[in-house]
Amino acid sequence: MARDARRSTLVDIAAGAGVSVSTVSKVLNGRTDVAAGTRARIAILLRQHGYQVASRLGFGVVDLLIADLHSPWAEELLRGTLEAANEAGTSVIATTVHSPQEFDAWLDRATARGTDGVLCVLRLPGRRELRRLAAARIPLVMIDPATEPGDGIRSVGTTNWHGGMTATRHLIGLGHRRIAIIGGPPGLWSSQARLDGYRAALQAAGLSPDEGLIRQGDFMVTAGRAQATELLGLAEPPTAVVAGNDSQAFGVLQALRERGLRAPDDLSVVGFDDVPVASWAAPPLTTIRQPLAAMAASGFRMLRSDPATAAGEPHHIELATTLVVRESTGPPRP
Amino acid sequence: MARDARRSTLVDIAAGAGVSVSTVSKVLNGRTDVAAGTRARIAILLRQHGYQVASRLGFGVVDLLIADLHSPWAEELLRGTLEAANEAGTSVIATTVHSPQEFDAWLDRATARGTDGVLCVLRLPGRRELRRLAAARIPLVMIDPATEPGDGIRSVGTTNWHGGMTATRHLIGLGHRRIAIIGGPPGLWSSQARLDGYRAALQAAGLSPDEGLIRQGDFMVTAGRAQATELLGLAEPPTAVVAGNDSQAFGVLQALRERGLRAPDDLSVVGFDDVPVASWAAPPLTTIRQPLAAMAASGFRMLRSDPATAAGEPHHIELATTLVVRESTGPPRP
Repeated sequence: MARDARRSTLVDIAAGAGVSVSTVSKVLNGRTDVAAGTRARIAILLRQHGYQVASRLGFGVVDLLIADLHSPWAEELLRGTLEAANEAGTSVIATTVHSPQEFDAWLDRATARGTDGVLCVLRLPGRRELRRLAAARIPLVMIDPATEPGDGIRSVGTTNWHGGMTATRHLIGLGHRRIAIIGGPPGLWSSQARLDGYRAALQAAGLSPDEGLIRQGDFMVTAGRAQATELLGLAEPPTAVVAGNDSQAFGVLQALRERGLRAPDDLSVVGFDDVPVASWAAPPLTTIRQPLAAMAASGFRMLRSDPATAAGEPHHIELATTLVVRESTGPPRP
Repeated sequence: MARDARRSTLVDIAAGAGVSVSTVSKVLNGRTDVAAGTRARIAILLRQHGYQVASRLGFGVVDLLIADLHSPWAEELLRGTLEAANEAGTSVIATTVHSPQEFDAWLDRATARGTDGVLCVLRLPGRRELRRLAAARIPLVMIDPATEPGDGIRSVGTTNWHGGMTATRHLIGLGHRRIAIIGGPPGLWSSQARLDGYRAALQAAGLSPDEGLIRQGDFMVTAGRAQATELLGLAEPPTAVVAGNDSQAFGVLQALRERGLRAPDDLSVVGFDDVPVASWAAPPLTTIRQPLAAMAASGFRMLRSDPATAAGEPHHIELATTLVVRESTGPPRP
């Protein structure tokens, strides 16, 4: 196209879309400082006029793989991904993957249609799966990896150790001395870090952990209820408990109710996650907030970071947990 | 391709993929009675060998538009969509849309990349939006429409009227006579149907509804708590309440706790939806189950139904609600 004709087309497009010529020019050059909706509209007009729109956006699609959507926890991660992608004008394809067969079926589809990369929640792909991803040149970022990811795998987590410590310190500050913990499944990276944070807080306060008060269970309401029932049946029961997550904390409240007891009068309860339903409990849960939506958003940005500038970036980042005090914790009975 | 050469390629592909020649042939002819993963793998092999794979699957992508992902209710709809799509070997692009601007941005992207259709949750697109969808030839199915959809708009809902009736009848059967209802927002299709079901059940039992026991509020915990607090403060409080949804029911439990009261001894509580967290409550909620995941799956199938055979199909279907009895309901105090 001659320079003048080209200029006049850009002017027409700008006028038609109701934006400035400089905005059209930005979109043409792949700049991302234009609102996503505007950018998409102008890109379409430009393509209709035969322009090649410069883009680092690739296919405009990012995949989110998640083992299970049965929890508010997973929902928050999905929400964070959608919000970050929306802002960037990218589409998110969400897929539940429970088995190597489902992973293969997903990868076949993703390869056929193209994807800018994949966010994997919790379940670390196996060696064979990592090889297939690499062969298909699909970038990967892990969200909240269940185990320590190997070298070269980028991941976003949360400060689980610090969270376990903060929860325990909050209870010590209220005057509790017999503090139980219900950990998540053994072997899970986050479970171990939270338990170590609990021990560190007790030790810093000059308290020695009572091994009888250290429990484990899966991240379900039923596990929280079962462990709390046992703890409440001890000759010398705890006055407070740090639950492995909010689901377990709901189970602790059920165990209290079954015995005609109440939180926080009879037992203070701290959850972990601060999923939206944490504030639905009676009483609303004091809990350790994981910034789940922000973790997903960070993963999304990490996935799309320019390899040229990302060389010096860390492979694993952890976002801070915070204590959210509601009504399920209070001083122990005198 | 000569017939023999063609046959021999299909044999090779079948051998390579470890399936029968008839399976390869089914995939080639766009039949869907082959597992999705297998179908995707074989389709790729066929395309690599220069075959055009017959397909009613179009772009292999379906869009899900949802106003808000902040509730377990929305999460269930998403889960149902993903499961149905997974089974069909289709990808789901989920997008949160809160405004006409965001709708436009989504539509621009969807038009640019192609989509087989869109499932819209709750929020009915406006006239302008419907026109744009029709112009882009993007099929639409509404899930749980907030208001009565116009002619020609396909939708999937649930039997809200029957649900309201079943909840009330359950309480009458337990011996309750003073039964309150907290409805959802006025103007919402589902709210009105549930309230009418409540009235119908009372009338069938020869009870006349007490207008002082009929309340309304948004579908939030806070609304349930506020309305329950007022109901409990009445000179003659109800002995049971039908909540507008499970969130409101959690709020009712909070209001009871604040007054040192308990469910079901002091007040029986029925929720609506049966979101997964309904069983987390203390006590676990008796509720009316909406088959949310199945609603989304039906919508997905409706969206992809062959227009040739779909001509006689109904435009709106309602899936049945069911009563799930847990521990938040019991007989009134004698």
